[in-house]
Amino acid sequence: MSAGTPDFLSRAAEILGQENVVAADSAHAYRDPYPLHPEAASSAGVRPGSVEEVQQIVRLANGTATSLWTVSRGKNLGYGGAAPRTADQVVLDLSRMNSIQEVDGELGYAVIEPGVTFFDLFECIQERRLSLFVSVPALGWGSVLGNALDRGYGMSPYGDHVQQLCGLEVVLPNGELLRTGMWAMEDSPLGHVFKGGFGPNIDQLFTQSGLGVVVRAGIWLMPWPEAFASGEITVENQDDLPQLIDSIAELRRREVFQNNCLVGNVVRAGTMNGPRSRWYTGEGSIPDHVVEEMREAMGIGNWNARFALYGDPGMIRERIRIIEERFNRSGFTVRVRLYEGSDGGPVTYADIDEKDQTTMAGVPSLKALSTVSWYAEDGGHIDIAPLMPARGEEVYDFYQEVKDLYAEYGFDLYIGYHVYARHLVHVTMIFFENGNPEQLARARELYDKVRQAARRRGYSPYRGHINNMDDIAAEFSFNDHAVLRFQETLKDILDPAGVISPGKQGVWPKRLRTSR
Amino acid sequence: MSAGTPDFLSRAAEILGQENVVAADSAHAYRDPYPLHPEAASSAGVRPGSVEEVQQIVRLANGTATSLWTVSRGKNLGYGGAAPRTADQVVLDLSRMNSIQEVDGELGYAVIEPGVTFFDLFECIQERRLSLFVSVPALGWGSVLGNALDRGYGMSPYGDHVQQLCGLEVVLPNGELLRTGMWAMEDSPLGHVFKGGFGPNIDQLFTQSGLGVVVRAGIWLMPWPEAFASGEITVENQDDLPQLIDSIAELRRREVFQNNCLVGNVVRAGTMNGPRSRWYTGEGSIPDHVVEEMREAMGIGNWNARFALYGDPGMIRERIRIIEERFNRSGFTVRVRLYEGSDGGPVTYADIDEKDQTTMAGVPSLKALSTVSWYAEDGGHIDIAPLMPARGEEVYDFYQEVKDLYAEYGFDLYIGYHVYARHLVHVTMIFFENGNPEQLARARELYDKVRQAARRRGYSPYRGHINNMDDIAAEFSFNDHAVLRFQETLKDILDPAGVISPGKQGVWPKRLRTSR
Repeated sequence: MSAGTPDFLSRAAEILGQENVVAADSAHAYRDPYPLHPEAASSAGVRPGSVEEVQQIVRLANGTATSLWTVSRGKNLGYGGAAPRTADQVVLDLSRMNSIQEVDGELGYAVIEPGVTFFDLFECIQERRLSLFVSVPALGWGSVLGNALDRGYGMSPYGDHVQQLCGLEVVLPNGELLRTGMWAMEDSPLGHVFKGGFGPNIDQLFTQSGLGVVVRAGIWLMPWPEAFASGEITVENQDDLPQLIDSIAELRRREVFQNNCLVGNVVRAGTMNGPRSRWYTGEGSIPDHVVEEMREAMGIGNWNARFALYGDPGMIRERIRIIEERFNRSGFTVRVRLYEGSDGGPVTYADIDEKDQTTMAGVPSLKALSTVSWYAEDGGHIDIAPLMPARGEEVYDFYQEVKDLYAEYGFDLYIGYHVYARHLVHVTMIFFENGNPEQLARARELYDKVRQAARRRGYSPYRGHINNMDDIAAEFSFNDHAVLRFQETLKDILDPAGVISPGKQGVWPKRLRTSR
Repeated sequence: MSAGTPDFLSRAAEILGQENVVAADSAHAYRDPYPLHPEAASSAGVRPGSVEEVQQIVRLANGTATSLWTVSRGKNLGYGGAAPRTADQVVLDLSRMNSIQEVDGELGYAVIEPGVTFFDLFECIQERRLSLFVSVPALGWGSVLGNALDRGYGMSPYGDHVQQLCGLEVVLPNGELLRTGMWAMEDSPLGHVFKGGFGPNIDQLFTQSGLGVVVRAGIWLMPWPEAFASGEITVENQDDLPQLIDSIAELRRREVFQNNCLVGNVVRAGTMNGPRSRWYTGEGSIPDHVVEEMREAMGIGNWNARFALYGDPGMIRERIRIIEERFNRSGFTVRVRLYEGSDGGPVTYADIDEKDQTTMAGVPSLKALSTVSWYAEDGGHIDIAPLMPARGEEVYDFYQEVKDLYAEYGFDLYIGYHVYARHLVHVTMIFFENGNPEQLARARELYDKVRQAARRRGYSPYRGHINNMDDIAAEFSFNDHAVLRFQETLKDILDPAGVISPGKQGVWPKRLRTSR
């Protein structure tokens, strides 16, 4: 805890009420749910309920030289959760600001506060019977806005969430309020329909950022589709991965696939049907012959791709035809189930089998949480998610290197490739038992090895665990780290006291910066 | 000419050679091709040929307190062309930097310099027989990169050009070189396949911007489609505009339409078949009964929408079915011509009728240039292009107000609506005879009146003529112009000497800023 913090917290309590100030030693203090270091500390926090309260808190932080760490819902599991970069930072917890301020069912957008979860937005739209579809990520309890700002993604055609932001309201580090894009024009109907404004576009400065606190934003929503299809592609041979990736990416570039296909390996499917002890109780990576048994037991391929299709049923049928032609030619099995409205109108959730009411169908869920209990009931995980070009041979080559590393460190290799038009996100997790020092030490080492292997190939993660942000930022080294120096220049001028999320993505304010 | 300029120009000649320095009084000096004020002056310029030369010139500008004004090809007709904000600024003309450094035919991107035109990129791709499609705007001689950076747009599914940028190389105002996104990671294959990087995303800061000089960029290209269709929708009754706009925007949101449909009025069609004297020689706006005669002579509707479809022929046929159903229901006429490959392979330009080899088919052209000769052989125009929400009733209401204003000021009303999913660009032009003082005075007044009418409704233009940038910027007035003050803060820290494009989009450096 830094020197000014007690003063800050007592004065924050005057602004917010004592019930909205959380002490670092309280049961509700903020901590990494899956700490990689067993000794990880917990942090104090404040919970403003309005834009004005955020402004007051930010001004108070300036006056008391207090570091704040902004979280919306703090559900970045595998990246540190609600824990700040350093335990002495006070969490600026925006979860009480959870109002859905506007939903436009015609043009397709919502204006939301940071505390709004995917569940909240989904339920709001169902209740109001709006013809809109919510793009959701693996877990629905996170913040819609926080996910987009941290460049998280969902499983739908609108899954690149940061690209759906349109019009931000931001509390700047000096406490002033800013609106971006057309929203800066007073009484304009364009605030959430056009991403632009006039002059240098500043919106994206507030993504993965400590340059301000986003307190409201517009986010685009897809029209509810007339029909929906859920599909899977099964690949028997492990070494057919290159063809699978190349074909998926090409059909995504051709806009036959509409969402990011998700390609998983056998262990990934196993974690959905865990715990591990159901399949194997030995040490080390699960051996290939056991993987083969798991595969047979689950009736799946060595690679299993899931996708969904959305829109007019006639167009969906054409998409299915193209997909089947392409993958059958490679000897892969394609299964698709098309759902249409039962009464001649658009499809509804009542028409869709429960097993297909997945995140790809826009249904927020907590099902994926169970995977963390792979090794132990009290399990955790860390995510490693390097970006790669969507080129099949490159992906397969890296896969083999990563597989060897997991074997060397004795963990089971979970793979989920999220395949986009030009890149993919190579999501792998390391599962562990919380607080198991031997396992955590190995997990940390493996994490570093995979990161090094990725770095050698020029693959950087799309986001970072709080413990690793400085290392990742350092990889962007062109011209003596010109980009980080540029970000620091902005930090110094916009946040001279260095109060907003110091160290976020490796960008530290001057007072906390150490020489590189 | 400011005090330091002669020294700057002579020292620039030492760096670039005398042949790459243009005096303000030379025949090649930089000027607005369609000046709204007959007395408009011309400006000096420098033409660097490499990134290193740009860096040297920028450093020299710092040393001599010289204002530079960056242009790529300077073809922003109707917005000032290559002319700077004030005539004493020296044009930093990047047109010699015209190399296409890389084209990836598989993942679909190019890496280009600012001098590359749409013609250049198109020809490069045809020559190399790459399966890629170039998104082109109305005129093909402009810079691909300049168009994207100024948030211009094209007529294809990739027509929102600024969204296709991926990885920028920028000379900062201090002469330093910066790479953005994954391109900042040395030897990474991700530079032009993922828009992200790590930490606050700074790419869009360099759009409509004087915060740096973009010297190279990656830009995404669409895969060449298997088939192509060219379509039009004809609407007889003027007051059916709301239905037309609403249906187009909805089908765009539903991704049935893939590009921005272009809806034009009769005068617009007339300008393609001008000059005006062919149709009418009287004063004032062309009267309604003459418009009706023009309409009959050209065999068109009161509103005429053009669109195109791209991709698998089976999917195109489904799109056509949906489009026909929707518009026939409103009593509108839909005509579509589908082109497939003659030999079973993908369509080629050889398969497409010449009349359909339009900008929507990715063919760069200068045909639209002829429209400026509407009133006189030596004609010019100014563009007014407010953004509006894509809501039919609102559009029709504004149309009627604008029509009355054009009648009041005696000009013919040209309308082209570029309809996107949630917004449209209301492109109207005022044509005039270059240097005709009476007509120019009326044009300036009409321009102001239309701008005021737009502003009252909260519609701001998507870009601005050099003469009007300050006025437009002033409209973004939320919280005492917080956004402009923020942009100025960035300007002051990144460009303390104020040398890069002072006044660009209303953002002036401190030394040239007057109090608002």
